[in-house]
Amino acid sequence: MNEKLNPSLAEIHIAASHLRSISVPITPVLTNAILNKLTGRNIYLKCENFQLTGSFKSRGALNTILNAMKIEPNLKGFVTYSSGNHGIAVAHAASLVQRPCIVVLCNDTPKNKIDAIKQYGAEIVLCESTPLSHIAICLDIAKEREYYIVPASDHCDVIAGQGTIAVELMEQIPDLDAILVPVSDGGLISGIALYAKRINPNIRIYACVPEGKMLEECLVEGKRLWPDPPQFLETECKACRSQQCGMITFPIMCSFIEKQVFTIPDKVMIDATRFAFEHLKLVIELASGLSLGAILSQHNKLDTNIHNIAVIITGGNIDLNDRLPWQQEK
Amino acid sequence: MNEKLNPSLAEIHIAASHLRSISVPITPVLTNAILNKLTGRNIYLKCENFQLTGSFKSRGALNTILNAMKIEPNLKGFVTYSSGNHGIAVAHAASLVQRPCIVVLCNDTPKNKIDAIKQYGAEIVLCESTPLSHIAICLDIAKEREYYIVPASDHCDVIAGQGTIAVELMEQIPDLDAILVPVSDGGLISGIALYAKRINPNIRIYACVPEGKMLEECLVEGKRLWPDPPQFLETECKACRSQQCGMITFPIMCSFIEKQVFTIPDKVMIDATRFAFEHLKLVIELASGLSLGAILSQHNKLDTNIHNIAVIITGGNIDLNDRLPWQQEK
Repeated sequence: MNEKLNPSLAEIHIAASHLRSISVPITPVLTNAILNKLTGRNIYLKCENFQLTGSFKSRGALNTILNAMKIEPNLKGFVTYSSGNHGIAVAHAASLVQRPCIVVLCNDTPKNKIDAIKQYGAEIVLCESTPLSHIAICLDIAKEREYYIVPASDHCDVIAGQGTIAVELMEQIPDLDAILVPVSDGGLISGIALYAKRINPNIRIYACVPEGKMLEECLVEGKRLWPDPPQFLETECKACRSQQCGMITFPIMCSFIEKQVFTIPDKVMIDATRFAFEHLKLVIELASGLSLGAILSQHNKLDTNIHNIAVIITGGNIDLNDRLPWQQEK
Repeated sequence: MNEKLNPSLAEIHIAASHLRSISVPITPVLTNAILNKLTGRNIYLKCENFQLTGSFKSRGALNTILNAMKIEPNLKGFVTYSSGNHGIAVAHAASLVQRPCIVVLCNDTPKNKIDAIKQYGAEIVLCESTPLSHIAICLDIAKEREYYIVPASDHCDVIAGQGTIAVELMEQIPDLDAILVPVSDGGLISGIALYAKRINPNIRIYACVPEGKMLEECLVEGKRLWPDPPQFLETECKACRSQQCGMITFPIMCSFIEKQVFTIPDKVMIDATRFAFEHLKLVIELASGLSLGAILSQHNKLDTNIHNIAVIITGGNIDLNDRLPWQQEK
């Protein structure tokens, strides 16, 4: 593993102090009696839906952009590609440092996310809905305009930013046994695992993914078994449809997270999202239905000595113009 | 004012200790950067949507039923009438003390609330949708079965139970200048005002009501100016459609709350409810859109020296089977 690519403990702490310096909130940890009763464990919901821009992505985006501006104060602007939340977070972060921003989005991105990006004054470039097309366009823009690229996950500062969740969590709930994390490219779980496992080597970090991800096979073999070119999964959760994890994040995951992966069918994810609205009174997006769905429907797969479990609620940017996912099922 | 009808400070503290003894949660107070920016104040959301049974009503119902059982351990059962949330709360509380329960409901009560009541094993009796019909039926049942009546608001123990919100709030945010409270019969605001004004006579307690409530006129005159027989208001918010306040609660309100009332059109209430889903990531019900709508759309009516404002989020039992209120508008 190339240590330069992975943030150190110090870099994650510096990221936390970056975020604190601009009043990024420490998100609350909520508990719920029904959830504890149903699962027979103590469940701690780390509510990144209450984070700035409505998802954890602001942590990585802000840390990366603040760091980039420190090193090169005359940066011309920023460009990124995103399934939505990362684009919103980068647009917001760029507006804070008063730099132009371009977000490359797949042409099937939900309207609520496009509106949020525009609200921060960023320019939007739409592209075909395939894993590689947006990256190519992003590279072209970066070259032509001399803009700084803010990757969605494969970047040391992005991973350090997401790791600040664990900095807060380990202080909020010191006796955690496990953390359940939705995984797409792997930036979130890498940041959390890098920090949490160094503070407490006994803690277990579990990935929660849609069907078809092949993550467990890859982790068990310690190899990228995914077919190329990269594909999108057949899932309702657009935020987690990358089949492959990142070139930086996958080795971190191999070193620090459990080989056992929670694979969540779409129906379970949607039911868990509804459960959050109905019983937890939280607006969450489908990606959060992966970790919540794992604990609701597969908690019996966890060792009985795992009592205190954090479930990462990644964000709450669900489209409220249209019917909700379970309403559309009718 | 008949002091026997109003809970004392001690009775509200005893209610708080009743609730603590059975692990009723202290609900969190949340803040949100967008909300603070929009209103130019520090807004503290007291999240009763996270309370047991999804609304503040569990406080009053549990305190009343625990007190009643202490005095008469052989009570045969409980009966109540309700717009929904109080019925759920009484059904839940009765199930905890293992007594049968009957809830009299108007025949237009939303399905989600009926389902919740049934889930706690209570019997449901439907009646015509007028303010007096359910009270008459409730009295008949109480007489016939020798059941204890748990009124929705006009009862010392119910008011003391709701007052426990203020016990928590004054500890959570010691330097509050004002509290904004949705008002129907007045049990919630009476409990909060009785406690908060005795602890800090300078704090201001404001009522937030639907159009047609006539509450400001009544408070200014100190008289019940409402037409008889009691009427329902024309509002989408079924939980707050009583025009009249209670015989016990109205005198408390005259003594302790501000004469200035926030009157909230339905459109503002629905927009505020949507704002909560979209920006606060909270599932709230329309009644909470009254207090949130007041601070979002009428904050300029508050004195400029009022900085720290608690907004009571009464509950989150909105019907998620159907389209949400703003979706139905199309």
